[in-house]
Amino acid sequence: MTIKAFGYAAHSATTPLVPFHFERRDPLADDVTIEILYCGVCHSDLHQARNDWNNSIYPMVPGHEIIGRVVAVGPQVTRFKVGDHAGVGCMVDSCLTCEPCEQGQEQFCNCVPTFTYNALDKNGQPTQGGYSDRIVVKERFVVKIPDGIDLAGAAPLLCAGITTYSPLRHWKVGPGSKVAVIGLGGLGHMAIKLAKALGARVALFTRSPGKSEDAKRLGADEIILSTDEAQMGGAAGKFDLIIDTVPSIHDLNPYLPTLAIDGTLVLVGYLGGLEPALGTVPLIMGRRSVAGSLIGGMAETQELFDFCAKHGVVSDVEVIKMQDINEAYERMLKSDVKYRFVIDMASLKA
Amino acid sequence: MTIKAFGYAAHSATTPLVPFHFERRDPLADDVTIEILYCGVCHSDLHQARNDWNNSIYPMVPGHEIIGRVVAVGPQVTRFKVGDHAGVGCMVDSCLTCEPCEQGQEQFCNCVPTFTYNALDKNGQPTQGGYSDRIVVKERFVVKIPDGIDLAGAAPLLCAGITTYSPLRHWKVGPGSKVAVIGLGGLGHMAIKLAKALGARVALFTRSPGKSEDAKRLGADEIILSTDEAQMGGAAGKFDLIIDTVPSIHDLNPYLPTLAIDGTLVLVGYLGGLEPALGTVPLIMGRRSVAGSLIGGMAETQELFDFCAKHGVVSDVEVIKMQDINEAYERMLKSDVKYRFVIDMASLKA
Repeated sequence: MTIKAFGYAAHSATTPLVPFHFERRDPLADDVTIEILYCGVCHSDLHQARNDWNNSIYPMVPGHEIIGRVVAVGPQVTRFKVGDHAGVGCMVDSCLTCEPCEQGQEQFCNCVPTFTYNALDKNGQPTQGGYSDRIVVKERFVVKIPDGIDLAGAAPLLCAGITTYSPLRHWKVGPGSKVAVIGLGGLGHMAIKLAKALGARVALFTRSPGKSEDAKRLGADEIILSTDEAQMGGAAGKFDLIIDTVPSIHDLNPYLPTLAIDGTLVLVGYLGGLEPALGTVPLIMGRRSVAGSLIGGMAETQELFDFCAKHGVVSDVEVIKMQDINEAYERMLKSDVKYRFVIDMASLKA
Repeated sequence: MTIKAFGYAAHSATTPLVPFHFERRDPLADDVTIEILYCGVCHSDLHQARNDWNNSIYPMVPGHEIIGRVVAVGPQVTRFKVGDHAGVGCMVDSCLTCEPCEQGQEQFCNCVPTFTYNALDKNGQPTQGGYSDRIVVKERFVVKIPDGIDLAGAAPLLCAGITTYSPLRHWKVGPGSKVAVIGLGGLGHMAIKLAKALGARVALFTRSPGKSEDAKRLGADEIILSTDEAQMGGAAGKFDLIIDTVPSIHDLNPYLPTLAIDGTLVLVGYLGGLEPALGTVPLIMGRRSVAGSLIGGMAETQELFDFCAKHGVVSDVEVIKMQDINEAYERMLKSDVKYRFVIDMASLKA
């Protein structure tokens, strides 16, 4: 027995997303069934819909920034009841027995976590994401949405939010910390808001002088034009942590000298090779590090939601209809979004 | 007034080191005057004698792994008395007022520490190193040599030792840690000994099967041939810390997947550009880091000597005469030394 579901799917790398009827698994004892209200649109949705990473499974329903309402719970579910607001991010399962899973770092599961879409579920069926009307997810991978938080604005916390929050927490950012963010997009604008809410002084590195005003509105204390050598020189030795959200190949070397002694530049936006080669002198001469970080674990994702509700932080979003997704993808490619599209799933029923 | 000194100096990048008479500063109130007994020969001595870094000041007396006997102390000196054994490493001064200096990280002094040779002292005169009969050094930059430690074997602790000990301590290596060392030379053999003495399980990455036996004698639990894909694959996800002592350009990418989640590869041997470009996937998918580290602070250098005396750790050395230095440089270029040349300064008087 299965649950009927309806959403939008890609059927190939070169065709637009179209309406799609499919099935979800019959809920297990520890499953939460969620009616989806909002789903954020992540750049990786587009990458996977278009097979940019050569690993796409079609038909594919993208979407891993899911906010909805619980409509059913299995008998073993303890944290949710019908009517609660619930969130689902990039993962819906993991082995649960390896060391990272046991430490609540499910994102680093030794067996690879089960991603929310474009992956195979434990039952062998492809997972399907949040561009749809409902989803069935194991309780451990469902986040409780605190009362009072804006639901559309909260959707991007499930990927863009946790992806920037996790390194801020791991590298112990708090009052007194000096944080810089490279790039002002979906990830970058969340990094600024979250670092600020954690009490840090925050700078934005950008190539676009036009982004100054918006960055300040979002919480940046300082804007550094990365194309201006004098500004870059003036930032030498300054930052404890740099969150690098740039989604494409780029040169890290200009940023490394702006790290303080023992500072870390953490890559969250770009999977690929770094060109040109990294110089080791600023690393060795200041015990600086270049690191990477991947989303966050489920406990940390819950912590993020509680933190955001307390501090009034959500994503800046442009709410769209499901029917507008293909146009939204084209606009994303031109960075024409401030700062995240979120699909209102009520539009599916229209 | 000055102190007469005698040693061996390079007078140009292309001529051999020759006997050289020069002067040391008249000791200040906080200076320790040391009769040099042994001086280790570091690869950077050769780089600087031959102007490989394009910053050489001639005439140059190299040497920054200095062990000697105190022959005079200024009135403000409190930790040393005449007759004590004393050590001098890579630094002889720093600004002492910046944040790194105040935190005991003189090696990261914001004004750049005064290096033991091939640098300008605060009085404007070039510093001269340990290939000589005596040296005058500010007390703060002098290490107490514990009783019972082999003096010739202890000399390399002042550079090769602290360069590997500092990252082991910074990244909290202890019982249960899994450490790997890349390269078995002056730094590499100390990294193995020190990691082992700290209680870690230690592996050596090497291209040379012939180094296996020696690495095990030094304390390695495991040898991994970096040219063997199966062995490299078998090491996936294994190490908390990799100490990379390779002194020339090399590819880090094969080593990154052998780091555990949250593991760090720390560069201690190579100042330059890394080729080819670093792939970000293993960094992001396991929150791994690539970092650098530079010698250590003075308090940590003292800690190292106390640790080595307690654990019976010194460098494996080949003691040479001062007159043999030029031949020793040629042998170093062929890696024909196990694992550090140390000059017996008694030979200067012969």
